[in-house]
Amino acid sequence: MAPRTITVLGGGVGNARFLLGLREYARSLPEPPEITAVVNVGDDIWLAGLRITPDLDTVMYALAGVNDVARGWGRVGDTERVSAELKEWGVGWPWFTLGDLDLGAHITRTSLLRDGLPLSAVVARMTARWPLGVRLVPSTDDEVETYVVTDDGELHFQEWWTRHRAALPARGFVSRGVSSAVPAPGVLEAIESADLVLLAPSNPVVSLGPVLEVPGVRDAVRQASAPVVGLSPIIGGAVVRGMADQCLTAVGVETSALAVGQYLGARSAGGVLDGWLVDEVDAAAVPELEASGITARAVPLWFRDAASSAAIARAAVELVG
Amino acid sequence: MAPRTITVLGGGVGNARFLLGLREYARSLPEPPEITAVVNVGDDIWLAGLRITPDLDTVMYALAGVNDVARGWGRVGDTERVSAELKEWGVGWPWFTLGDLDLGAHITRTSLLRDGLPLSAVVARMTARWPLGVRLVPSTDDEVETYVVTDDGELHFQEWWTRHRAALPARGFVSRGVSSAVPAPGVLEAIESADLVLLAPSNPVVSLGPVLEVPGVRDAVRQASAPVVGLSPIIGGAVVRGMADQCLTAVGVETSALAVGQYLGARSAGGVLDGWLVDEVDAAAVPELEASGITARAVPLWFRDAASSAAIARAAVELVG
Repeated sequence: MAPRTITVLGGGVGNARFLLGLREYARSLPEPPEITAVVNVGDDIWLAGLRITPDLDTVMYALAGVNDVARGWGRVGDTERVSAELKEWGVGWPWFTLGDLDLGAHITRTSLLRDGLPLSAVVARMTARWPLGVRLVPSTDDEVETYVVTDDGELHFQEWWTRHRAALPARGFVSRGVSSAVPAPGVLEAIESADLVLLAPSNPVVSLGPVLEVPGVRDAVRQASAPVVGLSPIIGGAVVRGMADQCLTAVGVETSALAVGQYLGARSAGGVLDGWLVDEVDAAAVPELEASGITARAVPLWFRDAASSAAIARAAVELVG
Repeated sequence: MAPRTITVLGGGVGNARFLLGLREYARSLPEPPEITAVVNVGDDIWLAGLRITPDLDTVMYALAGVNDVARGWGRVGDTERVSAELKEWGVGWPWFTLGDLDLGAHITRTSLLRDGLPLSAVVARMTARWPLGVRLVPSTDDEVETYVVTDDGELHFQEWWTRHRAALPARGFVSRGVSSAVPAPGVLEAIESADLVLLAPSNPVVSLGPVLEVPGVRDAVRQASAPVVGLSPIIGGAVVRGMADQCLTAVGVETSALAVGQYLGARSAGGVLDGWLVDEVDAAAVPELEASGITARAVPLWFRDAASSAAIARAAVELVG
């Protein structure tokens, strides 16, 4: 029987592409399940006095169909008139461009936050602009930002990722403020009450990691009554998108579908996975994953179009049943 | 002998046009005087989480040569992509448009204020972008906003002025927070040490008024060792720009060069004026003004071009010797 409620944990781009497929698949069912996405806030940052939430925006824009597919971030057809002014004024980071349409969202979010709304209420209000088909919830309303430990000190994840293109050797990652953070309203309930919990093919260290690290979230996943199934963000020993390999190397994990599955670990052994979907080229990893207590299956994992994305989502839904 | 330092008190558009002429005139002198403009902040407002300072911006843009002359506000060649987004998000006031280039300034200002800089320091930093030739200082670093008293309650000046086009009958004006405000650093010094104090042809009620109302400013003008000369914003019984007549009516003052001069009053009688420059069409008011203790002169007061504007400034500088 198809699940009635599905909760997805994840980050930005990979999560967005997966959710598009999952929504496509869900809509093909006689009774489409309700989908909740618990989204990483570790990439969030205050910049030029504005609160920027890259992963939430990436997912919102993609589900709304207004994202810039070619560029991989921001709004399609965006311009940079305001950003050029900010550079003239010497405010913000010159290497971190904010599109004009995108700035509309940042100004709106910041205004609502300054009015006293928690981030989750801001997200609920802003996502109501479009019929997304997925309920978006930040992992936490608290400001928990990822910092990268380098030999020259700690720097904000965005500075490491966007300015240095992850080229500065990372020794580790710190979620500043995470110890006192609490899950946003609805996060734990969405995990506990779901018929299925999915871990999107997101960076396991800096996207999925900070979501699971919010106190209470990892335990909720471990103790969920529903099966927990993840999708490998690694195909054939290479990252599908982004620079996850640098992140994995920093935490001593090999860049492979097998190693990442084992890094997340079987729920039966204290991890968070019941199932792990890998690409066909990684089929050889399936027996070893199964030996680790993780139900595994190799399927085509490249999101090429709506049909292939829906098929991936279906495979994830049906992996552990 | 020409003054070495001139301090001008005023608001937005009329002040900007006067300062352009004064700068033109100053540059024609062998030793150009230093010009300081103390600018009204009563029109300032928090909107969409951003601090907007209309009068300071109008003056800055005009002196920088980037203002939209035809429209009368904002940056020339500006667009409204972000504002359109804010309307979609339901943030801000739909009738209060913020241009994209203009928003660059608002974001910058807000960011610096949030960093803890007082407004005067923000203005000093931002005006350094262009060689303005005039030092701009806000009347106060405190948030003192003008509210309009109507039969339906008080509303922010911008709402009354921009949304209602000053058509709601005003019973009076309130500077919220003014009693505990202090002049911004340099304001009193600029008035006390000036060789000449000029009151720009600004709205006497809602532009000049809130500047003089900041505790200490009116007294500094009254006690200044320099002559104090004002320029009438009323020509031939009509306002040159804006809707000053509604404001004057609300405080029981006739819309005439004579009445406004007498409203500001002679310093010898507790007011703020030594001299008052009126337009040629108001020449008949000169004897009555002089009888009130105010040196008056009628000259062409329309700012038509650089030459006529410089001539007006020269007449103001030379009125009281």
